[in-house]
Amino acid sequence: MADQSITPRATDYSQWYLDVISAAELSDYSPVKGSMVLRPHGFAVWDLMRNELDTRFRETGHVNAYFPLLIPMSFLSKEAEHVEGFAKECAVVTHHRLRAAAGGGVEPDPAARLEEPLIIRPTSETIIWHMYGKWIQSHRDLPILINQWANVVRWEMKTRPFLRTAEFLWQEGHTAHASRAEAEAEASQMLRVYQEFARNVLAIPVLAGAKSASERFAGAVDTLCIEAMMQNGWALQAGTSHFLGQNFAKAFDVTFTGESGVREHVWATSWGVSTRLVGAVIMTHSDDTGLVLPPAIAPVQVVITPIWKGDAERAEVIAFAEGVAARLKGLRVKIDTRDQLKPGAKYFEWERKGVPLRLEIGPRDMAKGAVFAAPRTGGGKFAIPVDDALLGVVQESLAGIQQALYERAEARLNERTFRIDSYAELKERIDGGGFFVVNWCDDAANEAAIKEETRATIRCYPLDGQSPTGPCFYSGRPATHVAVFARAY
Amino acid sequence: MADQSITPRATDYSQWYLDVISAAELSDYSPVKGSMVLRPHGFAVWDLMRNELDTRFRETGHVNAYFPLLIPMSFLSKEAEHVEGFAKECAVVTHHRLRAAAGGGVEPDPAARLEEPLIIRPTSETIIWHMYGKWIQSHRDLPILINQWANVVRWEMKTRPFLRTAEFLWQEGHTAHASRAEAEAEASQMLRVYQEFARNVLAIPVLAGAKSASERFAGAVDTLCIEAMMQNGWALQAGTSHFLGQNFAKAFDVTFTGESGVREHVWATSWGVSTRLVGAVIMTHSDDTGLVLPPAIAPVQVVITPIWKGDAERAEVIAFAEGVAARLKGLRVKIDTRDQLKPGAKYFEWERKGVPLRLEIGPRDMAKGAVFAAPRTGGGKFAIPVDDALLGVVQESLAGIQQALYERAEARLNERTFRIDSYAELKERIDGGGFFVVNWCDDAANEAAIKEETRATIRCYPLDGQSPTGPCFYSGRPATHVAVFARAY
Repeated sequence: MADQSITPRATDYSQWYLDVISAAELSDYSPVKGSMVLRPHGFAVWDLMRNELDTRFRETGHVNAYFPLLIPMSFLSKEAEHVEGFAKECAVVTHHRLRAAAGGGVEPDPAARLEEPLIIRPTSETIIWHMYGKWIQSHRDLPILINQWANVVRWEMKTRPFLRTAEFLWQEGHTAHASRAEAEAEASQMLRVYQEFARNVLAIPVLAGAKSASERFAGAVDTLCIEAMMQNGWALQAGTSHFLGQNFAKAFDVTFTGESGVREHVWATSWGVSTRLVGAVIMTHSDDTGLVLPPAIAPVQVVITPIWKGDAERAEVIAFAEGVAARLKGLRVKIDTRDQLKPGAKYFEWERKGVPLRLEIGPRDMAKGAVFAAPRTGGGKFAIPVDDALLGVVQESLAGIQQALYERAEARLNERTFRIDSYAELKERIDGGGFFVVNWCDDAANEAAIKEETRATIRCYPLDGQSPTGPCFYSGRPATHVAVFARAY
Repeated sequence: MADQSITPRATDYSQWYLDVISAAELSDYSPVKGSMVLRPHGFAVWDLMRNELDTRFRETGHVNAYFPLLIPMSFLSKEAEHVEGFAKECAVVTHHRLRAAAGGGVEPDPAARLEEPLIIRPTSETIIWHMYGKWIQSHRDLPILINQWANVVRWEMKTRPFLRTAEFLWQEGHTAHASRAEAEAEASQMLRVYQEFARNVLAIPVLAGAKSASERFAGAVDTLCIEAMMQNGWALQAGTSHFLGQNFAKAFDVTFTGESGVREHVWATSWGVSTRLVGAVIMTHSDDTGLVLPPAIAPVQVVITPIWKGDAERAEVIAFAEGVAARLKGLRVKIDTRDQLKPGAKYFEWERKGVPLRLEIGPRDMAKGAVFAAPRTGGGKFAIPVDDALLGVVQESLAGIQQALYERAEARLNERTFRIDSYAELKERIDGGGFFVVNWCDDAANEAAIKEETRATIRCYPLDGQSPTGPCFYSGRPATHVAVFARAY
């Protein structure tokens, strides 16, 4: 399975992406259309992301909880826009038992039909706000700052591993507040948490902004987002944070008594990132050799490959390798002692799996008391003496790789972000990829027309404070926003 | 919500259990029958268990992965006993879209009926063995040692928080091996991991044994289990480890080429524990005051309650409390600075939430440079000087609480384990609870008859090597096993 070749990016970018995933054994197709299996290497990447995010959520005062997978169908209808957004992709549970079928096998038992069908959560606002209605009475019960790590299902017809799957893993934060200002501040804070995480952990620079009305979460007043740029110049929405106003509190009639004794509806946010971030990492950093992982989320940060001839040398070199590993405390290190593979085959495999740093140890290196380091990102091999400075040198090398990946991605983002003034230019250049920054007069019909013609959408109105400097690039009307258009995953 | 009273155990043990859960805010009822909400305090207990278990799984060579929630209905039928065991409690997905209903609201869209219904996993053997069939070709691909943390759904008519819910969280290990001996050794190893975890983390002594044929996992050759005794003398199955033989490999045609070149079916195990362990902890350690948690899984191990009069004193005492907390590095510590509650109300709340150790700090304690320690398990308060020895004293106190909880539970298990010789005695004494050890001649019909009459089941055939010492206590035939009967959750 791992010996298939990887299609070069220049030949077929989409196929390259699938080949990288397969060669690195990140995921596999399941017999259920659109449901992916996260193989151990892919799951470990997600698990490291989860740990990093969870720490950040705790530091900002959040706690984890768990709400039911199954939601009464009627709940979805309680918020008008929400049902509009999610009804078309809901997996529906209608029976709670199977029975033996006449021709063999099993079938849903008609006697076990549910009175009210249940849906598998596509997101949990409705069930959570139903519960918040039980828990919130007074301002003393606020704020509620809860996060949930969970699986969700959104039926998708066209799927792609990590980026768009029927079932995916994610976290969804759901907070309840006594004031509009506090909820808005929470939504902004969590966007900043995502942005910092993308930068420092995933080594992905992102554009932070607000969505246009047509791209907003179904039920939100405002959707904030971070948008990353993939190597082909397409955008990938990497995280969203929604200010929900009082929409769900009104739908589920959740009120509280303020200090002044007046009852009012609670203010809300929700925010989430998902396993699609694994796809973002793959498409930001990997190359024609295979997966490249930032050290912060690499399940194996350092692989040690001892090289030997004969059993006596094998034992000696492996003992030396174990000594090296023992010095690398706190790092995720693996020693590859497999007999059936030659060193070249091992290098090939670990490169495809994205391990940031390889330490080769042959008898000659051992004799010199050194290892030979080969960074996954290239730049030449170098010897490191095995002494008390080893750990520091390796840590520095990993930090350098992390930093270099970020800088390379940032340079790409900058180079391929274009300020343009005319719609003609967008049409001409959109096939080449990139982020197109324009003056824009907010108008859903025009936005739809542009999408129809160019397949580009407004990724966001950047939060960086830029004001439009001229008329709308499409309608010529006075501009209301600076907008960023791009094709997106 | 937290000010309702707790029914004493002696009055109504079942109601006491529900009251403890409610007072400690561990879980809540959801609008979907049998689906429970894990509130932050309850989820945090599970999360600490998860971390402890995950460490043990890694130490024994396992890796995590994630398989789909939805399984094709036909998969269930591939293993004859498996479908028998699970078909009656499956949630069935039949549609992938909702549409607007004539009378308002939404309904499953008939145009979006699935060709083959999907079931929500009640356990994942079938989908995992389908995937193993893709991954396993040769003995070099073995063993596969994968664990999954996931939610599963088993439709239950009678539910009870944590102990029996339609959806629950669990881990399920699924391993594939080249030989029977290796798979059997894996199943035994994981049972020992569970036993050690129950003892050292949950402070619960357990009986390790094998299930009789009628209590086996559907599809297993052998089911090993650990059984705990609750305070009412009922048993609770706390974890199971199954030797699956080649049953699933045959059902999904998973073979490998051995070193000798012969193709044979793969050998399998699966093993799991679930959120029902939270129920086991509650019913093993808690008292009429509320929840009692072993320090190893207490989300808050130490609560510091500063006591003050007036703002000036408040600031001083809280600053002192923060100094105390800073000395308790590595422990999970909370300072309760709430103004609206009196100290007594705070003590009451934290006792009901099961915090193992409370440190009270009043102006007089502060003046003496000391704190006043109150263990949740009683035994008298004592002063601890706030100096460099503080951390050690608190750690020792927590370790003492952990140990005392284990010893209390072990004494109960020993006191209420009875060796009996006659069925008459079982009938007479079963209402009083306890584990009844008997000589037994394995016979499913007799087992069913005893269950019918006494509601007692064989919890296990203990693994401690005891041999039967006389004829079967029920049939008088030559005994084949030593069996332990009890009523069970």
